[in-house]
Amino acid sequence: MVFFTNDYCIGAAPEILERLQSDNLIRQPGYGTDPVCQSAKEKIRKACRAPEADVFFVTGGTQTNQLVIDTVLEPYEGVIAARTGHVAVHEAGAIEYSGHKVIELPGHEGKVDAGELESYLTGFEQEEAREHMVAPGMVYISHPTEYGTLYTKDELKTLRKVCDGHGIRLYLDGARLAYALCAQGTDVTLPDISKLADVFYIGGTKCGALFGEAIVFPKGDAPSHYVTRIKQHGALLAKGWLLGIQFETLFTDGLYYKLGEHADRMADRIRKELERLGYPFLIETTTNQIFIILKNEQLDAFRAIVCAEVWEVPDSAHTAIRICTSWATTEQEIKSLLLCVKPFPKINGNDNQ
Amino acid sequence: MVFFTNDYCIGAAPEILERLQSDNLIRQPGYGTDPVCQSAKEKIRKACRAPEADVFFVTGGTQTNQLVIDTVLEPYEGVIAARTGHVAVHEAGAIEYSGHKVIELPGHEGKVDAGELESYLTGFEQEEAREHMVAPGMVYISHPTEYGTLYTKDELKTLRKVCDGHGIRLYLDGARLAYALCAQGTDVTLPDISKLADVFYIGGTKCGALFGEAIVFPKGDAPSHYVTRIKQHGALLAKGWLLGIQFETLFTDGLYYKLGEHADRMADRIRKELERLGYPFLIETTTNQIFIILKNEQLDAFRAIVCAEVWEVPDSAHTAIRICTSWATTEQEIKSLLLCVKPFPKINGNDNQ
Amino acid sequence: MVFFTNDYCIGAAPEILERLQSDNLIRQPGYGTDPVCQSAKEKIRKACRAPEADVFFVTGGTQTNQLVIDTVLEPYEGVIAARTGHVAVHEAGAIEYSGHKVIELPGHEGKVDAGELESYLTGFEQEEAREHMVAPGMVYISHPTEYGTLYTKDELKTLRKVCDGHGIRLYLDGARLAYALCAQGTDVTLPDISKLADVFYIGGTKCGALFGEAIVFPKGDAPSHYVTRIKQHGALLAKGWLLGIQFETLFTDGLYYKLGEHADRMADRIRKELERLGYPFLIETTTNQIFIILKNEQLDAFRAIVCAEVWEVPDSAHTAIRICTSWATTEQEIKSLLLCVKPFPKINGNDNQ
Amino acid sequence: MVFFTNDYCIGAAPEILERLQSDNLIRQPGYGTDPVCQSAKEKIRKACRAPEADVFFVTGGTQTNQLVIDTVLEPYEGVIAARTGHVAVHEAGAIEYSGHKVIELPGHEGKVDAGELESYLTGFEQEEAREHMVAPGMVYISHPTEYGTLYTKDELKTLRKVCDGHGIRLYLDGARLAYALCAQGTDVTLPDISKLADVFYIGGTKCGALFGEAIVFPKGDAPSHYVTRIKQHGALLAKGWLLGIQFETLFTDGLYYKLGEHADRMADRIRKELERLGYPFLIETTTNQIFIILKNEQLDAFRAIVCAEVWEVPDSAHTAIRICTSWATTEQEIKSLLLCVKPFPKINGNDNQ
Repeated sequence: MVFFTNDYCIGAAPEILERLQSDNLIRQPGYGTDPVCQSAKEKIRKACRAPEADVFFVTGGTQTNQLVIDTVLEPYEGVIAARTGHVAVHEAGAIEYSGHKVIELPGHEGKVDAGELESYLTGFEQEEAREHMVAPGMVYISHPTEYGTLYTKDELKTLRKVCDGHGIRLYLDGARLAYALCAQGTDVTLPDISKLADVFYIGGTKCGALFGEAIVFPKGDAPSHYVTRIKQHGALLAKGWLLGIQFETLFTDGLYYKLGEHADRMADRIRKELERLGYPFLIETTTNQIFIILKNEQLDAFRAIVCAEVWEVPDSAHTAIRICTSWATTEQEIKSLLLCVKPFPKINGNDNQ
Repeated sequence: MVFFTNDYCIGAAPEILERLQSDNLIRQPGYGTDPVCQSAKEKIRKACRAPEADVFFVTGGTQTNQLVIDTVLEPYEGVIAARTGHVAVHEAGAIEYSGHKVIELPGHEGKVDAGELESYLTGFEQEEAREHMVAPGMVYISHPTEYGTLYTKDELKTLRKVCDGHGIRLYLDGARLAYALCAQGTDVTLPDISKLADVFYIGGTKCGALFGEAIVFPKGDAPSHYVTRIKQHGALLAKGWLLGIQFETLFTDGLYYKLGEHADRMADRIRKELERLGYPFLIETTTNQIFIILKNEQLDAFRAIVCAEVWEVPDSAHTAIRICTSWATTEQEIKSLLLCVKPFPKINGNDNQ
Repeated sequence: MVFFTNDYCIGAAPEILERLQSDNLIRQPGYGTDPVCQSAKEKIRKACRAPEADVFFVTGGTQTNQLVIDTVLEPYEGVIAARTGHVAVHEAGAIEYSGHKVIELPGHEGKVDAGELESYLTGFEQEEAREHMVAPGMVYISHPTEYGTLYTKDELKTLRKVCDGHGIRLYLDGARLAYALCAQGTDVTLPDISKLADVFYIGGTKCGALFGEAIVFPKGDAPSHYVTRIKQHGALLAKGWLLGIQFETLFTDGLYYKLGEHADRMADRIRKELERLGYPFLIETTTNQIFIILKNEQLDAFRAIVCAEVWEVPDSAHTAIRICTSWATTEQEIKSLLLCVKPFPKINGNDNQ
Repeated sequence: MVFFTNDYCIGAAPEILERLQSDNLIRQPGYGTDPVCQSAKEKIRKACRAPEADVFFVTGGTQTNQLVIDTVLEPYEGVIAARTGHVAVHEAGAIEYSGHKVIELPGHEGKVDAGELESYLTGFEQEEAREHMVAPGMVYISHPTEYGTLYTKDELKTLRKVCDGHGIRLYLDGARLAYALCAQGTDVTLPDISKLADVFYIGGTKCGALFGEAIVFPKGDAPSHYVTRIKQHGALLAKGWLLGIQFETLFTDGLYYKLGEHADRMADRIRKELERLGYPFLIETTTNQIFIILKNEQLDAFRAIVCAEVWEVPDSAHTAIRICTSWATTEQEIKSLLLCVKPFPKINGNDNQ
């Protein structure tokens, strides 16, 4: 049985654990005021080519989304997201808990469409009753999306343009950013994101860290009193250098990219083989998440050999499964998976969805 | 030019103003602890045939929706509403401001469909990740809806059954309740609503009062410390008896029904005439709101004689207009309107949407 | 039995009811966009000699305090108030409900002391851990205070100077402002307040209106999207002109001052007589609230003739009572009170606290 | 220069890092559903002799306080704390951010006095206007307090009794609990706390863990949907087992007690020597925090050899300094400190505060 359930099921890249070990007894000032955090922030600024960037470290993704959205928005503003966006579905209402509406647009394989966004924003501005409505203040996108898909640089530029045209901000959730940056065919780099987004985060938890996300305001325009606001959200880690150590390590010698590269290449191999075996895909992806559609009668056999999450039920005869690699996926696991998976049954040839 | 823009554009039924005048110098204890409020509540209990009901008075609709939803829901719960529901669209985010997500279902002429509700709730309960999602705790419906439509008693019973099946509450927004109760053909009475809803409000602002809404918990199970919670929401009127006077008057000698009856009959006459003149309707209604579709070239002429709100733009050639009567609509206004409106143009006969 | 319990126990000044009556059937646009509100705001601007002022009307005091404090403060800021201030004690936590801490300073007969304020603010700024503390963003004062006392113009100027020195705002709660402006010996005028406070409100509910408070930003710098924020707080009255009518009437022909004048003169007469009769005062006041200290054995007899609130229990042998006049206190009531009250007993002469 | 600034300035007990290392590549289910967390919870239940306890792990103290207070209180309730309590002063308003007032009582060397508590609660219940006030729902105490002091078992029992008498809950903040449990002379054990508090937390961050606090509801009556509420607060760690590993390690072979014991004994030695040298203490403590009062002219010399926090300024001639040991304080550090500290100057003998 091999494990492809998700990308946050094991600890940290060995380099990180080693550093935690070697620095363990070094005394540090608290709450992120230590030199390791400063150094990690500097490395992130360099990687982003954003020398003015404000960088903050917190421990998890929901926390990050709640904090960023609540602090960047005015209290009367809401955040626009794809209906399938993490903040719209899987944050247990953390965004609304902080007072902000998630305004849902259709998701297109997880992505927000710039045309639909433009149309929504224009409609809002023409709305006579708009003083009685939640003002859109930000667009939330994830890259990769919850469906493993990626925006192209042109798509990001167009979203940016729409946002600029309406004076709202663009926020990019990079929980799995390593896997986006290293995907085959992507033309979006970290400096691109720094240029195009008003704020984004570099995911650590799913990309090799024990835990931790780095929030980046590339233009250095983080809202004032940010440390106080982080603490007010219960998100200020006492031993802040633990986050500093992790991100400094991830951004030394390109480790963040190596980890992303590894997961994506592992996924590429699985994708290629599943395609060869005739498996239909729910969505075409190039990152570490693969979504295939199984006939329900295949399900038990498949899951007996591969631990993988049920993703959707497209119809009563089929089930979509997510296979997820990570920085820690081993050669052995790939081999086991590829060895066990049987060709997709072709009875009648015409019922693959 | 006659005024059919909305039903909250003038003061109060004369009976109410007279009572305010005659009671003006009577000393009263504050914050709704006065005998007039007690008497008004008792009259409402009788009208609802709900002798155990808890009744509270507040000043407006958004305030009521925010208060009821926030106090009835647990902090981790959200409220389900039609996508067109007032709480989903036109409360300026007051629901989210109090921490709760509005979970949107499709609206069917403003109504929530019991089948879709059942399907959503079942889906949620089967969801593996439901601990990471907003738990549905209440269904919000409006009666009449924002589109002037009504639920039948059977529809309400079915919604009730679905709610019971999943342990969630049913909340009915009665901002225009008088116009629902007096509509031709409705089989839903105030006692029916008291039996079928967990909580609802009887609208005053749009139905003859200067201002004010009566929140009713028919089973007498209002959340504890309700006066404190009303005050905490900034919604406790110092001179509470002003609300008591208004509702006592509305529920004396059937005034509330007389006012509703008047508006609905006025609307019936307009509806009948517009139908005769060949006007197409956006939605069939029996309450005080009438939605007709005009060709854009008719718009200026029509609005030159009738003040009415643009409701929707169904397509680039047509515009939907809302004509709204109220308890205060005069015979003269109806006559003016009917006199001026010209037959709907029948060029080609086939383009009425 | 005469009624001196409070100043919000009866309806409105007759002029207001007449105007509500005469305007009752005039059609008005909703939500305060009507011409009456515009005219009322203009009259308030004139009375304040603040031609640029932003003015908003809402229905009650708690609502006003919650709204102003929440919208003027940044989310990480708190409001400083006297420990006895209304927002610290009697708002049912409405300020904290909107996310802000009330930072308590000692109250001196209800007043904040500028020296203690300066000292607190300086201390905060020198505090090493201040990023982990609530940042003071505003000082809340009431005028008259909850103890009926008044600030002098010099005191207000000093508070203003302290606020300026630390970059925080000064908010004046004028729930009983009429009674402050008309007190004997006060040197503080409405234009003074407009010059010295960043935001304040002119109380209607306790000063002759049915309900309603006028929020004034004298410099015209109200936070953006204010109508949306009012609605988000559930505080936007549909029939906004009801507030407009009341404030236009109050600020026509000096009615607001006449009402205040009346109440204060009535109180002066009571004060003088009680003093003559040997009653000890808890606090010296010049406004419509009088606080006397009774021996407990006097209490029943006193309250048998005068309805008045128990205010404090200074020690186990005495009880402080508040006698409160209002714009509506009648000559007859004063006479009855003065007729019935007996000289304060002087047994031993030395135990008047 | 030796470091006695605080107890959260270095990493984790070696046993914890070893376990993180050895388990690093073991695949685990997310969000605390893993077997390590289950085992850690079981060990905590045993240590507490509370077999029914609900246990939850989160990452930090402010987060814990915000979460526990917000989820245990009803939305209209506030939490009572000493004026010097962490939630009253140093949480950046995180409690108010979640909507709850911190009701301040005097602190007595950091402790809440049961008599004052009783008096406050009785007063509140007799208050006529209590519906307009924040209802006290919980008492917050810290053990050790922010001043390093401890409650006795009798004091805790009395507080419990007062809470029971008024139907409110008792919450104990155990950020430094190890140092309380191992202090000389304390008669309060973990099972005692489990019997006497409704909810408490066992601090990890300051007591040997990298990070993490264990929230314990000893009676197993945690509010429903607790995982959802943790996530809603942004406090649900994806790799929950990281917390499980730390607490399992701390509660294996008495490690938690060993760490506490070590710090307290180190502090005892410092205390004894400082006493011998004539240093006056701000407060008598028996835990890992020592507060001494220096003459200002001693300050620079003292701080040149010992890193220690300035705590208070009792008067213009003296400064109180906190010396803080931890589980990681070394023999070498103690020796350096004891070697360098000079006798307290005794000029005139009478000016030690």
